[in-house]
Amino acid sequence: MSQAALAIDLGGTKASFAIIDSAGAIRSRSKRPSHEGGTALSFDTLVASAADTVRSAGLAWADVRAAGVVVPGIYNPATGRAWAPNLWGCDEVPLLDELRPRFPVPVVVDSDRSGYVLGEAWQGVARGCTDVVFLAVGTGIGAGILSHGCLVRGSGGIAGAVGWFALDPRWRDEYGRMGSFEAEAAGPALARRFGAASAEDVAEAARGGDPTARRAVDETVEWLAMGVANLVSALNPQVVVLGGGLMQAADLFLEPVRHAVRRWAQPLAAPQCRIELTRLGEDAALFGAARLALLEETP
Amino acid sequence: MSQAALAIDLGGTKASFAIIDSAGAIRSRSKRPSHEGGTALSFDTLVASAADTVRSAGLAWADVRAAGVVVPGIYNPATGRAWAPNLWGCDEVPLLDELRPRFPVPVVVDSDRSGYVLGEAWQGVARGCTDVVFLAVGTGIGAGILSHGCLVRGSGGIAGAVGWFALDPRWRDEYGRMGSFEAEAAGPALARRFGAASAEDVAEAARGGDPTARRAVDETVEWLAMGVANLVSALNPQVVVLGGGLMQAADLFLEPVRHAVRRWAQPLAAPQCRIELTRLGEDAALFGAARLALLEETP
Repeated sequence: MSQAALAIDLGGTKASFAIIDSAGAIRSRSKRPSHEGGTALSFDTLVASAADTVRSAGLAWADVRAAGVVVPGIYNPATGRAWAPNLWGCDEVPLLDELRPRFPVPVVVDSDRSGYVLGEAWQGVARGCTDVVFLAVGTGIGAGILSHGCLVRGSGGIAGAVGWFALDPRWRDEYGRMGSFEAEAAGPALARRFGAASAEDVAEAARGGDPTARRAVDETVEWLAMGVANLVSALNPQVVVLGGGLMQAADLFLEPVRHAVRRWAQPLAAPQCRIELTRLGEDAALFGAARLALLEETP
Repeated sequence: MSQAALAIDLGGTKASFAIIDSAGAIRSRSKRPSHEGGTALSFDTLVASAADTVRSAGLAWADVRAAGVVVPGIYNPATGRAWAPNLWGCDEVPLLDELRPRFPVPVVVDSDRSGYVLGEAWQGVARGCTDVVFLAVGTGIGAGILSHGCLVRGSGGIAGAVGWFALDPRWRDEYGRMGSFEAEAAGPALARRFGAASAEDVAEAARGGDPTARRAVDETVEWLAMGVANLVSALNPQVVVLGGGLMQAADLFLEPVRHAVRRWAQPLAAPQCRIELTRLGEDAALFGAARLALLEETP
């Protein structure tokens, strides 16, 4: 008998809800802004929206095995506390303690990076793989890491903060604010290189043949490849899945990054690792949240 | 009742044997060159030396739970094959298949990097920690990684090849031979910066106040810190244990590296991570090999 999980991707701008069964089929889904009147959705509203999603799937709570919730930031599994500035400012929130009593099913929480990598390994281009990295490259950079089938969370839930990879000894002040990999390879870095407002503008100009835009893309490719290579050398994954906003321009990035990674990465690990574009997109986080819920051991 | 494990650290120059009990006490130990007449010790000789070590402890094979063997290179747990150029040249060796029939106890094999990190987490400065990195900095650079108590081996046993960390976009040919971190931060890089024959010579000159030697040390510190920081940001460990030949000069390196890591690493992960010098030295690999054997599930 297939089981159903409630998946919640509580993002910085929108909250997505889905009922996903153990075969990976989405039985219902919905979405709403994650803020209301300038503050993050209340936990009561969150549960009400979740209940709607359960009903839209034609289910009752009794049919739901557990709820998996992923958040954009740091979740410490030891304390159940979350740090997600885009939702709750700079304070840690006792998220697990807030959610558990409100839901009539068991609740599991993790970071969205964990959600992405679990989702890709379950239903995405990393399906069936045990050693996977999901690298999100958008306005920021972060990674979800799966090793031998287990999430690598680190001692405080911060593992995967690879936007902080040190990639150049020539220190710049930005490195201290966001990390050197993020300062050099995230969307805003590409925009800055071309003096454009957004990474999309640079991508469009590069596609049109603008040599300055092409050069900005090439430089960004090199930084991206260094960061991906570092993940390949340190973790020897079967696949690195690339996602995030910058991968809207995968036509400009994917092949060149694959090529440059081979130069930088450990030479035995590099050919063992596919570098793929996500095909699940943001749904990876929902699939991952469902997977967390389905793997949850009933207490 | 305490159990005894046979630990074998099959190094590139010497092979070390020990009987270690489940309380971490070394009951007997011995050592011999790992080559004989220009070739690596035969597996039969290896077992004979191991049997001597068992006898010196006043034990019989029946008292030994299992044998743990670590090798300097890559061990693929999926195939049981090892690649260790300092022992067997460039070919892979079917190590597990060679060893299992020769030993009257179960045999477990892993890389020495895995051995080091397991040993440090069991009996060293990382005792009791679940998230640990052991970073060996000698003529080469490599890491053993423990995440949530589990070894991170990667899909082909290559994880921890962090000598290949890309740390500078200004490509040099050496980077393609050994990786950029190793080319900039291992012992030979320090020697090269000072035009000396060995890292020891530079360390001695730096201790004597030679400004050029001091500068060579300072530069090397910065590269080391970048690499350590990358491990801290990616893995959020409780402790990074530094070992390997260059740490003979820990008086010059440890404090400056600690200081510089804080600048490069993710700012929440950095203060959660101690950076410590090994106190077990090479024995960490023996303790780790014993730990592998003691954790081995009897078939």
